[in-house]
Amino acid sequence: MSDGNLVISVDAMGGDNSPRIVIEGLALAAKHNPDVRFLVFGDMEKVRGEFKKFPALNKVCELRHSAEVVHNEDKPSQVIRNKNTSMYQAIDAVRKGEAEAVVSAGNTGALMAISKMLLKTIQKIHRPAIVSIMPHRYGKYVMLDLGANTECNAVNLAEFAVMGNVLAKHALGIEHPKIALLNIGAEEMKGKEEIRHAAKMIRTSTMDMDFIGYIEPHEVPFGKADVVVADGFTGNVALKSIEGTAKLIRSMLKDAVHKSFLAKFGLPFMYFAAKRISKTMNPKLYNGAMFVGLNGLSVKSHGGADGLGFSVAIGNAITLVRQNFVATIRDELERIDLEEISQDIYYELY
Amino acid sequence: MSDGNLVISVDAMGGDNSPRIVIEGLALAAKHNPDVRFLVFGDMEKVRGEFKKFPALNKVCELRHSAEVVHNEDKPSQVIRNKNTSMYQAIDAVRKGEAEAVVSAGNTGALMAISKMLLKTIQKIHRPAIVSIMPHRYGKYVMLDLGANTECNAVNLAEFAVMGNVLAKHALGIEHPKIALLNIGAEEMKGKEEIRHAAKMIRTSTMDMDFIGYIEPHEVPFGKADVVVADGFTGNVALKSIEGTAKLIRSMLKDAVHKSFLAKFGLPFMYFAAKRISKTMNPKLYNGAMFVGLNGLSVKSHGGADGLGFSVAIGNAITLVRQNFVATIRDELERIDLEEISQDIYYELY
Repeated sequence: MSDGNLVISVDAMGGDNSPRIVIEGLALAAKHNPDVRFLVFGDMEKVRGEFKKFPALNKVCELRHSAEVVHNEDKPSQVIRNKNTSMYQAIDAVRKGEAEAVVSAGNTGALMAISKMLLKTIQKIHRPAIVSIMPHRYGKYVMLDLGANTECNAVNLAEFAVMGNVLAKHALGIEHPKIALLNIGAEEMKGKEEIRHAAKMIRTSTMDMDFIGYIEPHEVPFGKADVVVADGFTGNVALKSIEGTAKLIRSMLKDAVHKSFLAKFGLPFMYFAAKRISKTMNPKLYNGAMFVGLNGLSVKSHGGADGLGFSVAIGNAITLVRQNFVATIRDELERIDLEEISQDIYYELY
Repeated sequence: MSDGNLVISVDAMGGDNSPRIVIEGLALAAKHNPDVRFLVFGDMEKVRGEFKKFPALNKVCELRHSAEVVHNEDKPSQVIRNKNTSMYQAIDAVRKGEAEAVVSAGNTGALMAISKMLLKTIQKIHRPAIVSIMPHRYGKYVMLDLGANTECNAVNLAEFAVMGNVLAKHALGIEHPKIALLNIGAEEMKGKEEIRHAAKMIRTSTMDMDFIGYIEPHEVPFGKADVVVADGFTGNVALKSIEGTAKLIRSMLKDAVHKSFLAKFGLPFMYFAAKRISKTMNPKLYNGAMFVGLNGLSVKSHGGADGLGFSVAIGNAITLVRQNFVATIRDELERIDLEEISQDIYYELY
């Protein structure tokens, strides 16, 4: 694996239908990224069984046996002590420098806990965050934090803005991403103190140029911002509200068409229109939440993802590694001294 | 107006197209509630002009001239000092006992500030809340707080549960509403401290029977709970995320059909299916956020509502007044001593 190629570490045992789905996703990702190599951790007997369906994988994968598996109900405090799980070993490969990113469909809390312990937080970052790429009306945006930190202070939020900014530049290719703080009003004095304080910090920093202030949740789907920053509780509530509503409408549409005799006749006419929407809004295409702020990249695939979904998560990891994501965040933080800015604002405010 | 009929006070000057829309809504509401009387506050010249279109209104309305209007950009601290606005006078009619509820499409912050000042918070309630009735897959639910209180403690949340419970019983006719706290995980230890504390309080109270624990935002649209309780920041984020996503999908569907030559042919077949969805999900039918926890009821119509929407807001006010909503909340709070429960739990926890 030391032939100079980019290497991604894969936990083959996470998710609802592992290792089958994981290997299907791996096969898809490998096909699209012939220059990438993979380290695959898991129960070798099961993994080899799946590999038989995709013989091409043998050339680009190195298999490593892990005796144990992290389960969904396992507590973070337990999993960080068990070095024999496929998840632990897949992350540890990044720590050892054998791989540049890890992808797992396993337990989110466990993946975060082990990643934090093994990869450590980037020196100037206080808290890592969970980020996703999401679709809006006219393109894509990144939103963070999606649940790593239930409560955040202003410095945390400003750090998320720095990381989101780098992510939008690299993963979405937007030269000057519009950065916004998620809030419940557009006026200067609205919302929580930490949000107002973070706004002041960002305005004082070099991000000022790209900062558009507050964004309200109903504006997010219409592309007002490319980077949406929130604490992990709020971001998670927004994300799950969006997901739930989309699922509700999908099920109501299906139900309404099903119950209407006439609508069934109209359905074939709708084929291309439906395909157009599914092409931009298909949740599979947005699979892969990234843990950022660590010395290395962990990508969490949805546990219920299918092969296509898992391949998208691997694709996210590859894109960010290619763009030198972690190093760029380190550089950005060298340029922007958030601690100093925070102190200055603190003196100003109190 | 003292003939024993139920009286609703109406601010004719709030909202985007007042007083036209307000009077249209009033006409609709009056038609459906022939036994209700209305006190209408506003610029009499303009209001009389609109009344000409609905002569039947003259029999059930009393018009009162207000010289001034609350504007959208007015600050709560200003509006509470100006007794000459239609909003102030409409609320004051409830304080004086001339009307039992007030409906306005004006500035939310102003309506809350004046309502709090004039109607005062119910003795055992610490903070009033904003509630809405919302559609889910199989019916309706109530969610609160939607933005009156950016930060809440456990007692506030438990009080919201009491009020939401009464509201679901009375406005939705559910005998034993399922009560849940909005959180980002289902496990006991997830989320913020005040949410976990509130859960303990509710379990200790007589609401225990109907309490189903935590609800995650993506479960809300599928009817898992009839009462969804959150702090005002979180509730507002959830509400606006739901609204934004629904709007996004609506606009994408329209766009996709518009761009597909074939889909236009299919459209007529979809008529009844679309009508079925619009019948349950039409946002107009869910207009009218209620301010609860005050000695009297204030209902806020969306500023951009049309006549049908405004009539729904009036309808909400009428339903709750008929059910003696304020008195029932007072009774419930007599039965459930939240302060005492909170103290007990506090001693237990620390």
